[in-house]
Amino acid sequence: MLMKVTPFKELLDQYSFVLFDSYGVLKNYEGIIDGVAETLQYIRTDSNTYRILTNDASSSPGRLSEKFKRGGLEISDHRIITSGMMARSFLSTKTIEGKVLYLGTESSSAYVLEAGKERLSAADYAPDMLDEIGCIVFLDDEGYDWHHAMNTVVNILRKRSIPTIVANSDLLYPVRQNEVSIATGALARLVEQVLGRKFIHFGKPDVQMFAHAYADLQEGNPDLQKQDILMVGDTLHTDILGAIKFGIDTALVLTGNTTEESLEVAIGSTGIQPDYVCHSIAF
Amino acid sequence: MLMKVTPFKELLDQYSFVLFDSYGVLKNYEGIIDGVAETLQYIRTDSNTYRILTNDASSSPGRLSEKFKRGGLEISDHRIITSGMMARSFLSTKTIEGKVLYLGTESSSAYVLEAGKERLSAADYAPDMLDEIGCIVFLDDEGYDWHHAMNTVVNILRKRSIPTIVANSDLLYPVRQNEVSIATGALARLVEQVLGRKFIHFGKPDVQMFAHAYADLQEGNPDLQKQDILMVGDTLHTDILGAIKFGIDTALVLTGNTTEESLEVAIGSTGIQPDYVCHSIAF
Amino acid sequence: MLMKVTPFKELLDQYSFVLFDSYGVLKNYEGIIDGVAETLQYIRTDSNTYRILTNDASSSPGRLSEKFKRGGLEISDHRIITSGMMARSFLSTKTIEGKVLYLGTESSSAYVLEAGKERLSAADYAPDMLDEIGCIVFLDDEGYDWHHAMNTVVNILRKRSIPTIVANSDLLYPVRQNEVSIATGALARLVEQVLGRKFIHFGKPDVQMFAHAYADLQEGNPDLQKQDILMVGDTLHTDILGAIKFGIDTALVLTGNTTEESLEVAIGSTGIQPDYVCHSIAF
Amino acid sequence: MLMKVTPFKELLDQYSFVLFDSYGVLKNYEGIIDGVAETLQYIRTDSNTYRILTNDASSSPGRLSEKFKRGGLEISDHRIITSGMMARSFLSTKTIEGKVLYLGTESSSAYVLEAGKERLSAADYAPDMLDEIGCIVFLDDEGYDWHHAMNTVVNILRKRSIPTIVANSDLLYPVRQNEVSIATGALARLVEQVLGRKFIHFGKPDVQMFAHAYADLQEGNPDLQKQDILMVGDTLHTDILGAIKFGIDTALVLTGNTTEESLEVAIGSTGIQPDYVCHSIAF
Repeated sequence: MLMKVTPFKELLDQYSFVLFDSYGVLKNYEGIIDGVAETLQYIRTDSNTYRILTNDASSSPGRLSEKFKRGGLEISDHRIITSGMMARSFLSTKTIEGKVLYLGTESSSAYVLEAGKERLSAADYAPDMLDEIGCIVFLDDEGYDWHHAMNTVVNILRKRSIPTIVANSDLLYPVRQNEVSIATGALARLVEQVLGRKFIHFGKPDVQMFAHAYADLQEGNPDLQKQDILMVGDTLHTDILGAIKFGIDTALVLTGNTTEESLEVAIGSTGIQPDYVCHSIAF
Repeated sequence: MLMKVTPFKELLDQYSFVLFDSYGVLKNYEGIIDGVAETLQYIRTDSNTYRILTNDASSSPGRLSEKFKRGGLEISDHRIITSGMMARSFLSTKTIEGKVLYLGTESSSAYVLEAGKERLSAADYAPDMLDEIGCIVFLDDEGYDWHHAMNTVVNILRKRSIPTIVANSDLLYPVRQNEVSIATGALARLVEQVLGRKFIHFGKPDVQMFAHAYADLQEGNPDLQKQDILMVGDTLHTDILGAIKFGIDTALVLTGNTTEESLEVAIGSTGIQPDYVCHSIAF
Repeated sequence: MLMKVTPFKELLDQYSFVLFDSYGVLKNYEGIIDGVAETLQYIRTDSNTYRILTNDASSSPGRLSEKFKRGGLEISDHRIITSGMMARSFLSTKTIEGKVLYLGTESSSAYVLEAGKERLSAADYAPDMLDEIGCIVFLDDEGYDWHHAMNTVVNILRKRSIPTIVANSDLLYPVRQNEVSIATGALARLVEQVLGRKFIHFGKPDVQMFAHAYADLQEGNPDLQKQDILMVGDTLHTDILGAIKFGIDTALVLTGNTTEESLEVAIGSTGIQPDYVCHSIAF
Repeated sequence: MLMKVTPFKELLDQYSFVLFDSYGVLKNYEGIIDGVAETLQYIRTDSNTYRILTNDASSSPGRLSEKFKRGGLEISDHRIITSGMMARSFLSTKTIEGKVLYLGTESSSAYVLEAGKERLSAADYAPDMLDEIGCIVFLDDEGYDWHHAMNTVVNILRKRSIPTIVANSDLLYPVRQNEVSIATGALARLVEQVLGRKFIHFGKPDVQMFAHAYADLQEGNPDLQKQDILMVGDTLHTDILGAIKFGIDTALVLTGNTTEESLEVAIGSTGIQPDYVCHSIAF
């Protein structure tokens, strides 16, 4: 199972279209990863086309684009596909009778507003509002007290049968070297377990974001084939599994969740096998 | 949570495009459900368009079409979308080095051949073939001895890190009134648990089949909107959850897994709420 | 599966020894349940002997005895067996190198002190104390900020491989009519899932508390047989399952988690079948 | 987390009472492990006392003793505590109305007979016997066709709410070097998942077998303390976790499931930390 490490530049010659995960591929807790700006610059002047696929519902693509810019990366918002956008699309197509109770910061709740729905922060909920709520959305792990908000959600869902969606199913995210924080997906899963229910989850490894990116790329490239696309990620069970399931090739980079030391154990224990391994996307 | 029962014909006036689950909606253990032939006849002469979405990898759409015909239903194979097709598509786009070991009948293995891959039945596997296997596929619960085949798969996967796919994740299927059989999805899950791995699953509630149907319908109807489509199924956690996740409306029928008596408990305990409930698709 | 309801007094004639769960059997959110004081009075003057088995690590038996007294029940502390006592026993027999980090109120931490260990509240933890911690204990859902404490535990356990114990594995507890609160067991499980680990759990349905009660009763009754003991509880998957596993008979009461309406569905869906069903322990 | 390897002989000086797991500690797929006979001989002539704790319901202690004898080990049956004995004890104390349907060989069904119950092999079940069955027991993975037996159990339990017990919860067992077989615990879990139920499980890591051994040792040694007992096993999540939970010290040997290479990853990923690591129990 020893995997050869491939220089990322070689892969750019083989695949015309590249999908990048964001955290652990383009940036980490210290900022933009060394060499990433140069690689994206090369891609733009080359004939390659790319998109960013990120399990993130904390901010809109516009905000994420601004953050990249502050870090020195020019990535226009139309290139950024978030799991929050999948949730927004669900909210806008489904008939929701009542307000959307959200768990997250005000920034994250933009996805609710953009779907044309009325929002209510879990932080502002009081028991007499029970009948006003038509849907619950987990967007971010910040912006509310966990104790209050999770007990709120549990008690609402014991009395009302309303759709509950999880706009980012990640369990952890890194905040500093060697330090992580529990993510909104883990809070949602706690509530699911306590109630014995399954919520509606968005984000990788679900294929929905890949299907969205594919449809998006297809617009400008009607002859697009799945064989022309490479997914680049740092996490086996989201980035790589989702891409395998969607049927496109995959490259795992070692600048995030998976390290050179943990690589073999991680692949062996999950059985999720990327097509390539690269140290990073830097040349 | 008391749900009003809606006559199915009313829904045909509201939605131009209908997706039907097969088992429990069109047919059951006794054959074609009463009134279904008339409804499909009505749909064909009306302006409605429909597709069948079935978690089935035991037979090709052509064979399923023939079976419907023998039961008195004219459903051409291009209207039938199976989870086996999703697996076939995966197999044909991914580079597989070696043979595809399949668990299923010879009929089910057509999906492997159609993907252009070499097949080997788990029933014919011997330990000296270990290095010839490039992929494992769960297609059907018949065609092999469970004891031998599952031990075979466990021992291969302890030694080789190769992709393993589950072409139908259903846990049970009905065989007679009040009698069920363990389905291939349950066998795959046993192996996953024993190995601590996650395989690649196809079929509802995954959105992939819905995305396929959507793209298919879009070809003839470029102005198609998700709001124009209704999914009709008998199972909350596959048909209805998948459609909710894809963002289309849903009708639950009471001719299969969910009965009038179990309806409220089922919705309450899962939190999966269909938009409509119909006794059946018969008028 | 229709179960006959048995008057509790009849059971007292058949079993010389009775084990009671506390919450939902003796008391509820409003206080002591009607008729319970009279039943316990009858038991004391009769030849029956009893113990209380409670999944509770928030207070010592002495404190719980005082609470019962304030509610009008005379139950001496030696009759009360808590899951906190199981955790205390673990802590006192195992060599722990360093402090015990606890999640709970100061009252709950008495179990740590009584085990002769040094305690540190998760609320007071700072990252530079990492190497001082030798064990982590989930005792109660109060006494700390969930966000801070759970992130603390996750980050400690990613760096240090130390025993982590859960002194009460309950997921929910009732706080008012129709209102519940997430219990410490659910918080522990969130951390387990996020880390992919299994902690050491105490409390029903584990048989340890039953074994403790049995050994305790045996001291005064050397001829004690399991057939002489009845467990009385309101919860199928803790009280009844644990007692079935330990091999003693069981009576389910309808004054707590299981109601007359939910009885059949609860038994049918779990397969956990009590020997008797009683409205309450009141005569 | 680097663990020092301790010679097993040193531990015999510290602990007067030793509990051994069988498979992976005393014997493996090739027979009795080198040096084990000498160690047991030393223990017998020394002042140490020991018991065997094995997750095995395929044969009675008498049969297991004979097997050890054929391999050259003299271990009298009263020293052998099996998970089958826990199941037998459950069956003999509980009122079972009807026959016990067992999944296993005829040898394994001795546990049913010894409990004074009438037995019926799953291999001999026919649908018209539905009302005769009062209990279901998973004893062994051999003696029946998996397909037939598991479908039988699923269909019985959908119609009848009867206790179902799993006399050995292990998921896998080794049959040759580098080859394993799916164990009865995995088959039981498949049925649990398909039905959404929890069965009654016996065997390590449950503390029941440890409590049994403790009570047994206490008879001859009234001053026995938990600190005097050492559990020796090859598997972290059964032998070591169970002993930690029961509150006794633990030594992990590297002659079975855990190898020198996998040791650190196994402890790190499970968080289950033995007190000692020994190459084997040989001197």
